Amino acid sequence: MAAWSERILIEKIRKSCKKKDKGLLKSIGDDCCEVVAPGPFLISTDSLVDGIHFDRGFHSAHLLGRKSIAVNLSDIAAMGGTPRFILLSLCLPADLEWEWISSWLDGVLEILHEFDCILIGGDTVKAKELVFTVTVLGEPAPTGAIYRNTAGPGDSIWVSGTLGSAGAGLQLLRNKQNPQNKVLFDGLEVLLAAHLDPAPQVELGLKLAASGMVTAMQDISDGIATDLAHICKASQVSAYVEANALPFLPELPLAAAVLEVDVESLILRSGEDYQLVFTVKNGVEAEFLKELETYSDTLMKIGEIRAGQGVFLQRKDGETEEISFQGYEH
Amino acid sequence: MAAWSERILIEKIRKSCKKKDKGLLKSIGDDCCEVVAPGPFLISTDSLVDGIHFDRGFHSAHLLGRKSIAVNLSDIAAMGGTPRFILLSLCLPADLEWEWISSWLDGVLEILHEFDCILIGGDTVKAKELVFTVTVLGEPAPTGAIYRNTAGPGDSIWVSGTLGSAGAGLQLLRNKQNPQNKVLFDGLEVLLAAHLDPAPQVELGLKLAASGMVTAMQDISDGIATDLAHICKASQVSAYVEANALPFLPELPLAAAVLEVDVESLILRSGEDYQLVFTVKNGVEAEFLKELETYSDTLMKIGEIRAGQGVFLQRKDGETEEISFQGYEH
Repeated sequence: MAAWSERILIEKIRKSCKKKDKGLLKSIGDDCCEVVAPGPFLISTDSLVDGIHFDRGFHSAHLLGRKSIAVNLSDIAAMGGTPRFILLSLCLPADLEWEWISSWLDGVLEILHEFDCILIGGDTVKAKELVFTVTVLGEPAPTGAIYRNTAGPGDSIWVSGTLGSAGAGLQLLRNKQNPQNKVLFDGLEVLLAAHLDPAPQVELGLKLAASGMVTAMQDISDGIATDLAHICKASQVSAYVEANALPFLPELPLAAAVLEVDVESLILRSGEDYQLVFTVKNGVEAEFLKELETYSDTLMKIGEIRAGQGVFLQRKDGETEEISFQGYEH
Repeated sequence: MAAWSERILIEKIRKSCKKKDKGLLKSIGDDCCEVVAPGPFLISTDSLVDGIHFDRGFHSAHLLGRKSIAVNLSDIAAMGGTPRFILLSLCLPADLEWEWISSWLDGVLEILHEFDCILIGGDTVKAKELVFTVTVLGEPAPTGAIYRNTAGPGDSIWVSGTLGSAGAGLQLLRNKQNPQNKVLFDGLEVLLAAHLDPAPQVELGLKLAASGMVTAMQDISDGIATDLAHICKASQVSAYVEANALPFLPELPLAAAVLEVDVESLILRSGEDYQLVFTVKNGVEAEFLKELETYSDTLMKIGEIRAGQGVFLQRKDGETEEISFQGYEH
């Protein structure tokens, strides 16, 4: 297999940068690119390092390309914005196969196309270690971006979908690497897919922001125990979460049994689900549910914001346990 | 020496992100930061890899912090823009000393302060290899950004200052590493400084853009043979440069003699001077020089744009040599 060449890679990137957009004044091929929007820009940048943030043994190049972008789109979704433009900074080992990086880029371009988002520039350098740095620019909803520091006592707490799936998927993939473990994946593919190809909640994030009823929001990348704690810390409030309200896929208990781990721990503490956790103004629940009717199958109210600080889990037996910042650490 | 800790590093970054600015709606501490400008944003992102783009044996952490930002500010200068906001994505080896990265960050903050530019966010990850990825956002002059693809036949070609200094400085530093070479640096410090602490031409770039007389521009990062070729390729024109018009520091010939290299080659082909090369509309030279009077000591007219393609060097004896894309490759 031939190694990549900078000339051919840049040619491929240049071709894909030719897409026109009224907000894009200058694309790749100058000292800077130039973009314009009617209002503010949301910006996020993240580096994904080989062996730390991803495992090429688990991920095909194509799915990893998709995920490299998905995790950044999720940051825009978490503010209720629309992703618009992407810059890539690629650190590539000299011996990386051309087929691999070409397939990675195809995955990148596929998901960008799905979200009507454009690659506008970046940088390619030779390095010992494979690192993808993605910078994403998005536009907040006309009603404004949703921050973390604006939740208030009395607000209800919601999640956009099931938790623990991606974490279970990652552990199943790791388990499979050990030849002593003969894990049956039959029926658990949905969990593997949650880790390998997460879906950023862009459309929902935008609807939530536009509703005018969401007070604070963020995405769940490190597990709800940590991500909800970020909202609480920024807003100087506490959160009380009902254990039996936390949504999970029907496949999760079987996976937990196979992995010999606790279902509840997977739900609370495992990362990379890229669902949204958000708070809704007190007293508008009926109106909110009507507005978000198309999402009624997946949205789940899980608790309440109160005065004080910390994130607490409440069990049916009345027991309360603090779980702040107990999530996944990369 | 103690290794860095993510918590202490992020605390230091957070403190420096507290600066307020009317264009900054949300700084570090949320899923995204949020910025707004009256017009477009210029954006550039670059990764600097240890051992490829810099040598920690030559660079103090502090000067490397300054340079990590300077090369990005130069991209904004090359469009005639004002740098406004910076995002950092840091890949740091686990055993990197805290004092080193703290001093690097001090260098970053020092140059940001000098250019009235603000750190607004980023990402910190553990990695095997030290990589700094800097994303800079700037605002073009009200008269508009200056691109590479807008030079026309008859335009004169100018540079903002002396060439070859940083390249000579780098070679002198490399030479010093070899214990067999006893290089005297007396009187050559200015060349070392040109490599170690380059000055991005932001103020001048803005004045050039505002003059309305500059047709195309870019910064000289890979040597004028390559960087002028980028303008020519993008604008579909050719450039004729007079060899005896190329400006260089009086110290350069001595350095070339010490290094046993050709002075002309240093001037044309060595990188990282971060001067500007630009073209001025035909027939406005007197007006242009009056407008840029304060820079009359450093601005130098070096040639002319013509139809055709390629970059050509013209010597006094009438000899013409093509030099397109003969510059420095990282």
